[in-house]
Amino acid sequence: MILISEVGPRDGLQSISNIMPLEAKKAWIAAEAAAGVTEIEVGSFVPAKLLPQLADTAEVVAFARTIPGLTVAVLVPNFKGAEAAIAAGAHKITIPLSTSETHSLKNVRRTHAQMIEESRLIAELIKAQPIDRRPKFEGGLSTAFGCTLEGVVPPERVVALAEALMKAGCDEVGLSDTTGYANPTQVKDLVKRVRAAVGEDALSGLHLHNTRGLGLANVMAGLEVGITTFDSSLGGLGGCPFAPGASGNIVTEDLVFMLEAMGLPTGIDLPRLLDVRRILKAALPNDALYGFTPDAGLPLGFQPASSMTGVRQ
Amino acid sequence: MILISEVGPRDGLQSISNIMPLEAKKAWIAAEAAAGVTEIEVGSFVPAKLLPQLADTAEVVAFARTIPGLTVAVLVPNFKGAEAAIAAGAHKITIPLSTSETHSLKNVRRTHAQMIEESRLIAELIKAQPIDRRPKFEGGLSTAFGCTLEGVVPPERVVALAEALMKAGCDEVGLSDTTGYANPTQVKDLVKRVRAAVGEDALSGLHLHNTRGLGLANVMAGLEVGITTFDSSLGGLGGCPFAPGASGNIVTEDLVFMLEAMGLPTGIDLPRLLDVRRILKAALPNDALYGFTPDAGLPLGFQPASSMTGVRQ
Repeated sequence: MILISEVGPRDGLQSISNIMPLEAKKAWIAAEAAAGVTEIEVGSFVPAKLLPQLADTAEVVAFARTIPGLTVAVLVPNFKGAEAAIAAGAHKITIPLSTSETHSLKNVRRTHAQMIEESRLIAELIKAQPIDRRPKFEGGLSTAFGCTLEGVVPPERVVALAEALMKAGCDEVGLSDTTGYANPTQVKDLVKRVRAAVGEDALSGLHLHNTRGLGLANVMAGLEVGITTFDSSLGGLGGCPFAPGASGNIVTEDLVFMLEAMGLPTGIDLPRLLDVRRILKAALPNDALYGFTPDAGLPLGFQPASSMTGVRQ
Repeated sequence: MILISEVGPRDGLQSISNIMPLEAKKAWIAAEAAAGVTEIEVGSFVPAKLLPQLADTAEVVAFARTIPGLTVAVLVPNFKGAEAAIAAGAHKITIPLSTSETHSLKNVRRTHAQMIEESRLIAELIKAQPIDRRPKFEGGLSTAFGCTLEGVVPPERVVALAEALMKAGCDEVGLSDTTGYANPTQVKDLVKRVRAAVGEDALSGLHLHNTRGLGLANVMAGLEVGITTFDSSLGGLGGCPFAPGASGNIVTEDLVFMLEAMGLPTGIDLPRLLDVRRILKAALPNDALYGFTPDAGLPLGFQPASSMTGVRQ
């Protein structure tokens, strides 16, 4: 079973200027969960003046928590964000740590050492919660495959930061190709190196972008070295290659099609998933949606790996 | 060294209604060869009334033959086409055999048995030529990963047809994902099966489409089972997913970027290759060009596997 972690409500929406109404977000999350998606990153606890698109994250978390079986994930840039995430009841929180220090300073105005310390404080905060209120805590190693400011990021540095995050108290780390620089050989190499340092269980997920068209080839590489969780965004929302700052997430529909075609069940009902695009189109009529499979349709005689009984409900 | 076989002047141009002028075709082929591409499928010997876009194939072959080191490939649907190709001096000819007999009957009005016999006659014709005028002869197994008319194509049938083509006198066979149905698991499986039947040397190439976004993931799969030749089209010309009959070839620029980034030299100078798009844009201003890498640009600090000395001239 491969876990698809839908990040569109966070990474997709933060990359477009239009603000999706709360009701549309709820409808989107509910429909994707109904299609069999079991983990959704629903928002980010950042100041509303920085990302007004995600200002309603607490309300979104409250709603998403009512969906049985859904892991409700959020992004937090710092301790304050983690406090808000815990108060809202998120099941999983991720703190991004840019492996390019130049990027980290520009993005969150913090050095690596400061971000590791912030992570340690968040881990302590989580441990201080009642056991049934403790979210899973992930350190997201961003720009791990290269940086638009620094260029090459040495893998040794990524490994060292992964170790530091685990030592600070993260439950796991993830590798993010924030810039779309990764290639399949590099994905295999870096996954192996990080796993050798922190253990297999501490690295299960990849957050890949399709900026240069290699997104699914990089997924293939990840699969071959044992990765079981992939982030993606429905309709590749926010991923226009012509828009500066675009996320370029891999498209959930194409990812699920590939995995199901390969015989790797995701538990997701593909026709129902494709149908969720209608909610996005209606709520964001001026933002482009991407994806090859939605345009081409499913192959004649297509047999998905997930039987209907494999789908969650 | 991975061989990129550019098929845009044939597969790309036959998929659009606008006709590229002969001079533009020459400029395109010359520029791509100058960028380091060593094999180009420059046209198809089919009746001009069926494909007026390729009516000047004999002239294009004559020109392309003047480029030192370039393998000039063409497609031929039948014996008559092969005669014309040999007369023109093509270095390599490919006869497509649709593994879906329904598709074969619809496309060229011939059964499998008739196409095998046609291939046998072409092989005899080639053997009757002076030794320095004999083109390489490839049997292209199209719809090998599934058919829009028949659905699933059993791999046993693909293997049987590959054996029949080799027995008929082909030098090699290739597998074509005409419909964009292939997935990485299937690519590995079918390559292994066909190679087990006809030998490793008899299957070196894949012709993949990106119809459902899996093109480069399928390349990855091919690489892992030893495939060393990939067809692709500059700018993915003719590949609009909304146009019926569109080819949807994988994009040469993205393919070369992936391979070079992975440390697999292609001998192609990527900036020079990207520059060739200008010729297509000028000659076909109303046809869309595709590709992620051309839009995103090369990563900061990118080191291609091909050193400049690896480039042909």
